[in-house]
Amino acid sequence: MEENLLKEITPKSRDFSQWYIDVILKAELADYSPVRGCMVIRPYGFAIWEKMQYFLDQRFKATGHKNAYFPLFIPESLLQKEVEHVEGFAPEVAWVTHGGHDELSERIAVRPTSETIICSMYSKWIRSWRDLPVLINQWCNVVRWEKSTKPFLRTAEFLWQEGHTAHRTEEEAEEETLRMLEVYRDFVESDLAVPVIKGKKSESEKFAGALRTYTIEAMMSDGKALQAGTSHNLGQHFSKVFDITYLDQDGQLKNVWQTSWGVSTRLIGALIMTHGDDRGLRIPPKIAPIQVAIVPIYGKKKEFVLDKAMKIFNMIKEEYRVELDDRDEYTPGWKFSEWEMKGVPVRLEIGPRDVEKQQVILVRRDTGEKLAVKEQDLENELNKLLDDIQKNMYDQARNFMNENIWQPTDFADLKKTLEEKRGFIKANWCGSSDCENLIKEETGATMRCIPFEEQNPGKCIVCGKKAKSIAYFAKSY
Amino acid sequence: MEENLLKEITPKSRDFSQWYIDVILKAELADYSPVRGCMVIRPYGFAIWEKMQYFLDQRFKATGHKNAYFPLFIPESLLQKEVEHVEGFAPEVAWVTHGGHDELSERIAVRPTSETIICSMYSKWIRSWRDLPVLINQWCNVVRWEKSTKPFLRTAEFLWQEGHTAHRTEEEAEEETLRMLEVYRDFVESDLAVPVIKGKKSESEKFAGALRTYTIEAMMSDGKALQAGTSHNLGQHFSKVFDITYLDQDGQLKNVWQTSWGVSTRLIGALIMTHGDDRGLRIPPKIAPIQVAIVPIYGKKKEFVLDKAMKIFNMIKEEYRVELDDRDEYTPGWKFSEWEMKGVPVRLEIGPRDVEKQQVILVRRDTGEKLAVKEQDLENELNKLLDDIQKNMYDQARNFMNENIWQPTDFADLKKTLEEKRGFIKANWCGSSDCENLIKEETGATMRCIPFEEQNPGKCIVCGKKAKSIAYFAKSY
Repeated sequence: MEENLLKEITPKSRDFSQWYIDVILKAELADYSPVRGCMVIRPYGFAIWEKMQYFLDQRFKATGHKNAYFPLFIPESLLQKEVEHVEGFAPEVAWVTHGGHDELSERIAVRPTSETIICSMYSKWIRSWRDLPVLINQWCNVVRWEKSTKPFLRTAEFLWQEGHTAHRTEEEAEEETLRMLEVYRDFVESDLAVPVIKGKKSESEKFAGALRTYTIEAMMSDGKALQAGTSHNLGQHFSKVFDITYLDQDGQLKNVWQTSWGVSTRLIGALIMTHGDDRGLRIPPKIAPIQVAIVPIYGKKKEFVLDKAMKIFNMIKEEYRVELDDRDEYTPGWKFSEWEMKGVPVRLEIGPRDVEKQQVILVRRDTGEKLAVKEQDLENELNKLLDDIQKNMYDQARNFMNENIWQPTDFADLKKTLEEKRGFIKANWCGSSDCENLIKEETGATMRCIPFEEQNPGKCIVCGKKAKSIAYFAKSY
Repeated sequence: MEENLLKEITPKSRDFSQWYIDVILKAELADYSPVRGCMVIRPYGFAIWEKMQYFLDQRFKATGHKNAYFPLFIPESLLQKEVEHVEGFAPEVAWVTHGGHDELSERIAVRPTSETIICSMYSKWIRSWRDLPVLINQWCNVVRWEKSTKPFLRTAEFLWQEGHTAHRTEEEAEEETLRMLEVYRDFVESDLAVPVIKGKKSESEKFAGALRTYTIEAMMSDGKALQAGTSHNLGQHFSKVFDITYLDQDGQLKNVWQTSWGVSTRLIGALIMTHGDDRGLRIPPKIAPIQVAIVPIYGKKKEFVLDKAMKIFNMIKEEYRVELDDRDEYTPGWKFSEWEMKGVPVRLEIGPRDVEKQQVILVRRDTGEKLAVKEQDLENELNKLLDDIQKNMYDQARNFMNENIWQPTDFADLKKTLEEKRGFIKANWCGSSDCENLIKEETGATMRCIPFEEQNPGKCIVCGKKAKSIAYFAKSY
């Protein structure tokens, strides 16, 4: 029976894309809905998002940000104010044209992002240098009418947070942009155990309307890149068209400097594709909705074993997120497979002989390793074990990433590498969009970022001219 | 200067409606937006909503519910499945007709509520009695294209939570409906200090598509009623049209019984209108984003006083939500008025002589009372004081409500009472919608609820026939 459960998941190596969908549906993270391109986030998937929100929100507040809520709707005229911005988003806007039985006099966009509506308010609220900085974040839904969609990675509607700040100086805005990028890196690496590369986007890949876009790029276990979070220095682009000015201490009227930054439910996709295996999800302990699944194995002593299982459940439930699986209609084997598929970091097995020996068996989801642990040591051991699993999962992903970064010698080698191998290309780049485009056209790989690393580049991998920087290129989600 | 701040708020007694708007704008709870009927919830207002979410979410989880997320969009065909439901909501639906540059083949509603989209998923997920009950809640935004709007009370878009549950039996569904009504009552009375009357809605006032609607009704300080939360027993209305069936233990295929229940950001409106006064907001300590505002009064000893103020801030900041107002550009008097306007329950004043005496002055927002408290007693005293303020604000509101419930002797007396007095009418009612409508037409008061109280009614206040129940009638928001 347990084998049947697993058979419903396509092996990762055979078809990564189908494996991804199978895992999402079978583990009940999400489901397709009757609305084109929109998904339902089911309770188990939403519990992951709630944890993500909790960890991020704490970090946002610790860095001085406050939450607010701006309207879902943006009048067309407002969306059109910043030229690059509207060009970037107009093709994927959902338009409201009727309210009740009446046609609206002006079309209204369902927000694809909120810079314009927020700027219209900042222009009203900000008067003096005393009002700055403005540090606001919003948790909400946004809509982008994408042609092809995939659960968590690209859906018509998704959930995210968007930070929007206004500052007195360019330096302060740049500091904020980088501060929030670092908040994202720390969260994604520490809590999601997903290693990333921090860097700057190229001109062609930056946010529509930004001066500079910074990104954290993760490597999925098929070698493709996933942009896990972005932080934009907006400069004064929006500030000028929305007339956001303040009276400075020197008596001068000046435009503010702005930033915006966001991460979304696509991080759940990153989590799945970084850690999952043929048996399903693997969720790092810090973010796991259930950290320990207790599976009693009754043998012929149901009451004897169940009593103990309940005692252990009650003993650890305050400190850990734990579930006691006392369902009668499933075999222990089926339960093992189900909790593995759901990615629960630790399975706690307990049978009649364990009860007699005053021990339990802990099974690690990350390595499959089994440990017999004495009851009196359980709380201590669990703590250490969960820490170790968190660390090990990060190390596994970090090693995988390091092993799949290639440094080709020339353009021909770059093309060959991208054909034959999965992973990222690290190469010298002259900075021209011509060379960037040529790579994209001939390989399908895009420029992911110019890393915040040692920058002592030689010659551009494409044109051979003096390179400006090192850059990562990869196929991506 | 402090007087100028207050002058910007219209006295409550002169124009309650204008007072309400003034308080919202001046205390920076919310602001008007460039989108018709939509408001911006500013950080101070949103912090109240975050607290509400926290207290409610804990209660939902403690009663076994899990959060999930369903699409913002509902295809027109889905919305139209339940006849009463679509008739109730169609006049206020915002319609999406275009995605990007393309016209959609079917119009899509921006959700006014999510019964239909959720039922379409439940019909897929629920197969067996083992799948029941399904206990899901969603925090989200909804849109109702209302003709006339007012911040928090009635806006085109608002934030809320909607619980949607499915059960095996009618009894279980009724139990759940009443359980969640009690959760709402407990939250609104204990945390918001807003007293309510629990009861059942009449046929004409119930939710479109429900079997029965239960409500908690609060009395605002102008005497009008505000529906603070509703819980609906949906019976099998949706279950039948959406074909939500399960195989029961007896081998029979049966339709589930459903409930839905919700509260929204209109609770912030209830909070303002229950507790506010001519000086602005009064927020009960449990829900207050800031519980204590420290205002140092320097005299000629700025450093001396500020040092101590910071020590006190650091001493209590872990246990209380506290703000140290060390702004140099405002006088203490101005600060007093501002924190009063913002409804902060306790102001902590400290001047040079207080520092010498090792004491601080605590000023209650609810009564204006001042207390000198020794530094070493501060943490203890604050605890008691905040509890006492919470209790006192509830008692004040409860007394106001009790004093403004009228029991007229006949229909003429009822009409006279509603003309001359503010508050609720408590009267016998025969249960006919004719009598209900007559009251509405002649007085503007609607039937608020049939209370869960002693029911030993005499004759109907309108027609004089034997009454079926006691009922509350009032003008409402």
